[in-house]
Amino acid sequence: MNFKKIAIIGKYNNLKEDPSFLDKLKSLIKFIDDQGLQVFIEEKTEQQFKINRHQSITLAECSNVDLIIVLGGDGTMLGVARAVSHLNVPIVGINQGRFGFLADVSFGDMENELSQILQGAYELDKRMLLQVKVMRDDNLIYESIAFNDVVIKSGSRLIELELSVDQKLLHKQRSDGIIIATPTGTTAYALSAGGPILHPTINAVSIVPISPHTLSNRPIALDATKPISAKIIDMDEGFLSVDGQIKFPLDLRDKISINKSKNTITILHPKEYCYFEMLRNKLNWG
Amino acid sequence: MNFKKIAIIGKYNNLKEDPSFLDKLKSLIKFIDDQGLQVFIEEKTEQQFKINRHQSITLAECSNVDLIIVLGGDGTMLGVARAVSHLNVPIVGINQGRFGFLADVSFGDMENELSQILQGAYELDKRMLLQVKVMRDDNLIYESIAFNDVVIKSGSRLIELELSVDQKLLHKQRSDGIIIATPTGTTAYALSAGGPILHPTINAVSIVPISPHTLSNRPIALDATKPISAKIIDMDEGFLSVDGQIKFPLDLRDKISINKSKNTITILHPKEYCYFEMLRNKLNWG
Amino acid sequence: MNFKKIAIIGKYNNLKEDPSFLDKLKSLIKFIDDQGLQVFIEEKTEQQFKINRHQSITLAECSNVDLIIVLGGDGTMLGVARAVSHLNVPIVGINQGRFGFLADVSFGDMENELSQILQGAYELDKRMLLQVKVMRDDNLIYESIAFNDVVIKSGSRLIELELSVDQKLLHKQRSDGIIIATPTGTTAYALSAGGPILHPTINAVSIVPISPHTLSNRPIALDATKPISAKIIDMDEGFLSVDGQIKFPLDLRDKISINKSKNTITILHPKEYCYFEMLRNKLNWG
Amino acid sequence: MNFKKIAIIGKYNNLKEDPSFLDKLKSLIKFIDDQGLQVFIEEKTEQQFKINRHQSITLAECSNVDLIIVLGGDGTMLGVARAVSHLNVPIVGINQGRFGFLADVSFGDMENELSQILQGAYELDKRMLLQVKVMRDDNLIYESIAFNDVVIKSGSRLIELELSVDQKLLHKQRSDGIIIATPTGTTAYALSAGGPILHPTINAVSIVPISPHTLSNRPIALDATKPISAKIIDMDEGFLSVDGQIKFPLDLRDKISINKSKNTITILHPKEYCYFEMLRNKLNWG
Repeated sequence: MNFKKIAIIGKYNNLKEDPSFLDKLKSLIKFIDDQGLQVFIEEKTEQQFKINRHQSITLAECSNVDLIIVLGGDGTMLGVARAVSHLNVPIVGINQGRFGFLADVSFGDMENELSQILQGAYELDKRMLLQVKVMRDDNLIYESIAFNDVVIKSGSRLIELELSVDQKLLHKQRSDGIIIATPTGTTAYALSAGGPILHPTINAVSIVPISPHTLSNRPIALDATKPISAKIIDMDEGFLSVDGQIKFPLDLRDKISINKSKNTITILHPKEYCYFEMLRNKLNWG
Repeated sequence: MNFKKIAIIGKYNNLKEDPSFLDKLKSLIKFIDDQGLQVFIEEKTEQQFKINRHQSITLAECSNVDLIIVLGGDGTMLGVARAVSHLNVPIVGINQGRFGFLADVSFGDMENELSQILQGAYELDKRMLLQVKVMRDDNLIYESIAFNDVVIKSGSRLIELELSVDQKLLHKQRSDGIIIATPTGTTAYALSAGGPILHPTINAVSIVPISPHTLSNRPIALDATKPISAKIIDMDEGFLSVDGQIKFPLDLRDKISINKSKNTITILHPKEYCYFEMLRNKLNWG
Repeated sequence: MNFKKIAIIGKYNNLKEDPSFLDKLKSLIKFIDDQGLQVFIEEKTEQQFKINRHQSITLAECSNVDLIIVLGGDGTMLGVARAVSHLNVPIVGINQGRFGFLADVSFGDMENELSQILQGAYELDKRMLLQVKVMRDDNLIYESIAFNDVVIKSGSRLIELELSVDQKLLHKQRSDGIIIATPTGTTAYALSAGGPILHPTINAVSIVPISPHTLSNRPIALDATKPISAKIIDMDEGFLSVDGQIKFPLDLRDKISINKSKNTITILHPKEYCYFEMLRNKLNWG
Repeated sequence: MNFKKIAIIGKYNNLKEDPSFLDKLKSLIKFIDDQGLQVFIEEKTEQQFKINRHQSITLAECSNVDLIIVLGGDGTMLGVARAVSHLNVPIVGINQGRFGFLADVSFGDMENELSQILQGAYELDKRMLLQVKVMRDDNLIYESIAFNDVVIKSGSRLIELELSVDQKLLHKQRSDGIIIATPTGTTAYALSAGGPILHPTINAVSIVPISPHTLSNRPIALDATKPISAKIIDMDEGFLSVDGQIKFPLDLRDKISINKSKNTITILHPKEYCYFEMLRNKLNWG
């Protein structure tokens, strides 16, 4: 790829957590400027941090840029990825100190690693996305892209769900809920709930029950191209959660369908990136 | 013990699930009547099922009876046990078909098993209870007895909790929540969440994290005589749950303390009762 | 497929466990005979059960038959599959009473289900195989096909292993051993050791550590096309196990490589076969 | 306690791993000497490290000393504890750099922490031991004390065991084996195999199945005062392991009985010792 137009997004509301965030953001912008590249500041980032020397851009307008650079953590990456998933623009994530599963350029070594990436020396990493839809009485009442996971969960104790795959019954289960995770999401909530790690290159989704009543109800990985649907059989109250960032209340009548999105997210990593090394670091396998 | 006065409690609202429930209840009452014993019908049971030939009694008045017979399942047993825990009256549980962990006299064999128990041929089984208190700004805002478990849980995704035991920090943890279970409760929700089974004679409580962020954050059993306290460090919304039957909303300022109750619940089992056999049946260890 | 020549294999040494086995085997043979098909009896089956009216055949000669029918359980299926994996002949498994994960034609309904299959009404199910090789001082000292799993295991307590995938280090780990399972194998030993279920259509292998010292060392599924290699760093004694049926002693110098086999096993199921229904039955998800 | 006679034990064969070990041992001896206390060097330690200025003592003779100081790690502590468990002499463990679950005086801060302990400022920690016996055809063929755990394990794949508690059947199970752990042992192998942590003050043993065939066969904690017995129903080869340090081959006829030992081990910790803090450190709960 030839990178000329670069969009920059900073984690919102970050000044409280990290007072030096604005300085970091400015030094990132200056560095990209200095490469002779055209910098666009994402609109809300600009408004919040009052960076008004550069052209502003909405996420929706990012189809015209060649690269999106995110300064933040994995949470910020998730949100940006969902918003631009249809644009086919690659993303680079710069963390502010702690390596992320996704944001793996470290701010301290930013100049070195970003120059390499901008010159074409990067590891290209395509990640699967899910599309989730909620139907209520034959009306589509909610729709979203998920990068990590779609979670159907009880707000109190038990929810009874019926899961089908490719219109065949997988199981009815009583549990706290169920996680449907992309390979990317298998190192997030699904891992805490006892699910396996799926390497990002596997074309599968992981179905992880949360505290299932039936002890043999174990995590199962399914071919990602098969549509998954969930029907709520019984619950007091429940909700759908997307990437742990969006919460949508569910009703007993709701039918949830989860499909592999036709879009993918492309993350660019520094050349020496190794998925396994990242796992070893993040999970303290050392 | 010498059983003369018997209180009978039927599972409320059970007619819909089991239309024959009233007949079962009547045959239980008749059987106790026929033994020449004095029958009291628990007030709400009487109102609901319109059994008006017998003296009615509230749960609070049960201090005068010698035995409480519950017709229902484990859920009904839990509720009754919490209500009468201070009365020191033994309980027998009759299930309506499916053996329970607690309600283990089967309706089909009721006459045989009850006669034996009433003649003194029973297995006496004392179970520990927990007392939970919630303090908000130094005010006691909630208090309850728990037979199975006290659960502190997020209503959405993550809750950050600090647990102390005997005023020493156990850990800070980020998770979906935490279960503090009596030995009785270790075969209920705590088991689904990955906790161990504790034999009822062990003087311990089981602390089971629900989907903990830190993978090494494993279940731990603690001396039940040590007070446990939990402080909420961070959450969006959360609640306290007692035996999965009571739900109380929590606030960021709340402090929850859990202590072994000075009261216990005494369950009478048929003479041939064996805890391990019950486990083998309920958990399909065959 | 057009089925004319049928090889029949019976579980060896089965007369002790099931005295009626010979009768079952004979009725299977008679049934195939009656269809006007040409029956071959696998050599050892013939010798053991003294069925001498039919032509005998070795497993190696099965390349000329159109279908192999196995009367036995999953264990027999595993052994036959490894032996004929290079022949590209489909297999049908008839169990003697208890449904298997693989042997799913029930003897009782054999005539009905087999006629359908022989007439072309079957579900075709291609399963991945692994090839394992052990190198000692640059010599190939062991080689096998695995249908379920390759296990590297300590004979006493700890083994320290270094795993690499596509020549990149996955991790060094100390554990009781490690399971490398095909999707088929994920419902066998790997499941007992805490691994996930992988649907047979997923092109992945599951790496499941057995009692790992590092608690965050969780099961991981990898792209099956990538070669896996294991190096023993430390152990007292250890061995390699294939499908739980072959045991080969390992040495500290040994390097084990595991690759997806270029061959597959084709199992024919009755038309109404559903993988999920089989899971629900076998794992009691009811 | 009044400490006058001190026995010192060094980890055997440690010079290869840590060339400075002899210097450490000498500085420990000198420090105890300097306190005006009478030093005894354990016989094998003396032979190996050629420390001949002090009186030597066998472990069996340690009944006359007031305190045993172990320089080594948890492994050394386990071995010494088993050997002196009947002597009722307290033990202090000095680690050589990495904190242990048991050896928690750090060599670097040894002088400070040991002086305090010798002056009576210590945390006294009594730990349960198990006694294991193996009977073959009514003959006692093996007997040992266990500090961490007794493990009955298959040398290859499956072992079928029948466990009884207080002469009542707990379960028959097919697995890789079973761990019977003291509370101390619950942070060792039992934790790797999925067992819970039991606080050392709980009078319980933890029964942890290793890769059990039946998925609902979960860890269970039992009253330590009840005798446990295991019968081998089926296996190819198997062995008994004590604390992961002793391995004894088992036979199909063997019956294994495990009882709480009447002896205990007393460990002295520095005054500020906190079991929970140790857990947080060792398990990275930070």
